Amino acid sequence: MARIVMKFGGTSMAGTERIRRVASIVRRQQAAGHEVAVVVSAMAGETDRLVNFCREANPLYDPAEYDVVVASGEQVTSGLLALTLQAMGCKARSWLGWQMPIHTVEAHAKARVTAIDSDALVASMQAGEIAVIPGFQGLSADNRITTLGRGGSDTSAVAVAAAIGADRCDIYTDVDGVYTTDPRIVSRARKLNHVTYEEMLELASVGAKVLQTRSVSLAMKENVRVQVLSSFIGDDAVPADELPGTMIVSDEEMEGLDMERQLVTGIALDKNEAKLILTRVPDRPGAVSTIFAPLADASINVDMIIQNVGRDKGETDVTFTVPLADLARAQALLEDKRDEIGFNRIITDSDVAKISVVGVGMKSHAGVAATMFKALADRGINIQAISTSEIKVSVLIEEAETELAVRVLHTAYGLDAEDEAA
Amino acid sequence: MARIVMKFGGTSMAGTERIRRVASIVRRQQAAGHEVAVVVSAMAGETDRLVNFCREANPLYDPAEYDVVVASGEQVTSGLLALTLQAMGCKARSWLGWQMPIHTVEAHAKARVTAIDSDALVASMQAGEIAVIPGFQGLSADNRITTLGRGGSDTSAVAVAAAIGADRCDIYTDVDGVYTTDPRIVSRARKLNHVTYEEMLELASVGAKVLQTRSVSLAMKENVRVQVLSSFIGDDAVPADELPGTMIVSDEEMEGLDMERQLVTGIALDKNEAKLILTRVPDRPGAVSTIFAPLADASINVDMIIQNVGRDKGETDVTFTVPLADLARAQALLEDKRDEIGFNRIITDSDVAKISVVGVGMKSHAGVAATMFKALADRGINIQAISTSEIKVSVLIEEAETELAVRVLHTAYGLDAEDEAA
Repeated sequence: MARIVMKFGGTSMAGTERIRRVASIVRRQQAAGHEVAVVVSAMAGETDRLVNFCREANPLYDPAEYDVVVASGEQVTSGLLALTLQAMGCKARSWLGWQMPIHTVEAHAKARVTAIDSDALVASMQAGEIAVIPGFQGLSADNRITTLGRGGSDTSAVAVAAAIGADRCDIYTDVDGVYTTDPRIVSRARKLNHVTYEEMLELASVGAKVLQTRSVSLAMKENVRVQVLSSFIGDDAVPADELPGTMIVSDEEMEGLDMERQLVTGIALDKNEAKLILTRVPDRPGAVSTIFAPLADASINVDMIIQNVGRDKGETDVTFTVPLADLARAQALLEDKRDEIGFNRIITDSDVAKISVVGVGMKSHAGVAATMFKALADRGINIQAISTSEIKVSVLIEEAETELAVRVLHTAYGLDAEDEAA
Repeated sequence: MARIVMKFGGTSMAGTERIRRVASIVRRQQAAGHEVAVVVSAMAGETDRLVNFCREANPLYDPAEYDVVVASGEQVTSGLLALTLQAMGCKARSWLGWQMPIHTVEAHAKARVTAIDSDALVASMQAGEIAVIPGFQGLSADNRITTLGRGGSDTSAVAVAAAIGADRCDIYTDVDGVYTTDPRIVSRARKLNHVTYEEMLELASVGAKVLQTRSVSLAMKENVRVQVLSSFIGDDAVPADELPGTMIVSDEEMEGLDMERQLVTGIALDKNEAKLILTRVPDRPGAVSTIFAPLADASINVDMIIQNVGRDKGETDVTFTVPLADLARAQALLEDKRDEIGFNRIITDSDVAKISVVGVGMKSHAGVAATMFKALADRGINIQAISTSEIKVSVLIEEAETELAVRVLHTAYGLDAEDEAA
């Protein structure tokens, strides 16, 4: 008997018919003798609907009230899954974020889990009750609803798995695992049986939307075994204890598994970035800090940063990217600080995409970036910015060239499968 | 300066544009110097959507999980109204049922408010913050979400008004007050400037859907001044402190106001009843109790009850009505008790309507019921059941004859206005 956490995304929860399918997958695990907690997302499209309401109500919305609105989507699906499981004869109940509670820091709309009171939850699971937990939501110290940011349900699942000492955290999604790149763009993309935490982290952070970044780093930190798999596989195709998908493993485990590692594991893309250029910023100590401190205070994640030499001596252009959703807020914040920062104007561009090649193999091999730049240059794709990490090289390009760039790189790194994906 | 509670129904909250209209009405009251708490319903249609999800998930749904699902509708609108008020420059925040909390008994889906912890709420209002409170929801002693039953937001508003000692509870709705009957059926229906708590209670309980029954009885018990008025009046047409509508008053106040009272104040109709007939129930002491005790335990409200003499000696047919929404559950409960009760079969009929004439004037006048029966008989409308109270006579008729019956009675009691309503 194992204790497992199962997490289902919005596509799997879209409507009562699909929720019934989810319930039957959950019931199968319980029938196999496991203690089961299920973490659910809102129905596909629902969070967008709620976010749009918030934007319409107040473009510069108060994140505390935003959280009240958007957390409702997961509340609905958790109640519905509990009802559906009951209809199938299982004992089940929902545990809302404020009920356990899942404690978080107060950064509304981007909260981080600090602790989970899981005693009552575990007691209920031990008594044979399936625990249904709305993802994405928590409770702040001042007793208000928080949310963990878009995709936060993955983090909820891993956090719950860590808190209850789960043997496994299965993330069910609408794809059957992690691919070398988006199969909708590259038909010869291949499914990976294993990726390392670090690779998954880079893939997630640059837009391979299988798992939320924080969920992966939390899994790495808490040593939670995470498996990505599809909720759309046939009911009878797979035994309860042997599910196909992608297992996320440590570097050490990977070395034992895969003797013929590729240099590059995958190509990720992210269209949800926006570029800002502040022109003619005084080139003096502390200038950059006056730009980025207020953004950090507002919990806006700045990604790529480039400082160009400006036209005039003593001045510089500063280019950086932020999540597209934060562009208006970032721009407003910077306009407020115009005198303090001393820039000339802000140029924004949301028609950009970030393409990244990722692989632990890079650690011991040179030339990965050079291959990338040459492959893109050969097709006339202009690189607007570059950033690198130990196992990743990212470039910012024009959004219209995204698909071309991904295909070119997938071939350049020898990732193409022999057959096209089904 | 007064302390007022304003309540807005689902039609007023249907979409961000209408919520903006509500926010401007609220802001006007605050600008007049009042302390304001706003109680909101879910967007029109949203609760139905959520209830349907629950029914699809599990026709015999667990009310505790049902409450988790349906309470989300008001959570959304309370957050959105707070955001909208903030966008207009007001200080505002939402207070969810579990946050104050609004304590209720544990009868899920039909909970009753037992106490409200309003200290933090009042402190926030005194600091100039508009309190936005989702109606319909509360918290049970075991820390789970409860809801007060359909239309429960009116009760939330009156309960909050009582708890914070509000000077007035204004119920904004999509009609501009209480009418002698539904103006969509009778074009010569007249708006009433005043009705008594008792009359309103009877009108509400028999389907004049302006206010929920319990809200009126709570207002009567707690002596809360309630005003019903429209949220669709022109912004500038009415001064902030002088709003048109129907004021609900005590018997004494009414006598001082209205020297020429009508015998009958209004005609109400209710199509949300269903009739059950249990045939051949043993005619012995306690038999009726075995029927109605399990229904009461399941919080199903039984209304009209008639015991007919059965065909055989020692047996009787028992006819009664329940809310249409509870018909399936009532039927299932009674089938479970078939042996204990000893009936032959259950006949159900949901194509019925209850028509009621209501008026405090009845207390001192005879002949009201006779007028009703004659007027209906003259038009060939068959009466299936009758019930009466001190200020009300109700009859159950075939649903198809509802509109005809209401028109006939409106004329028979001299309620027709001289001109047709606009």
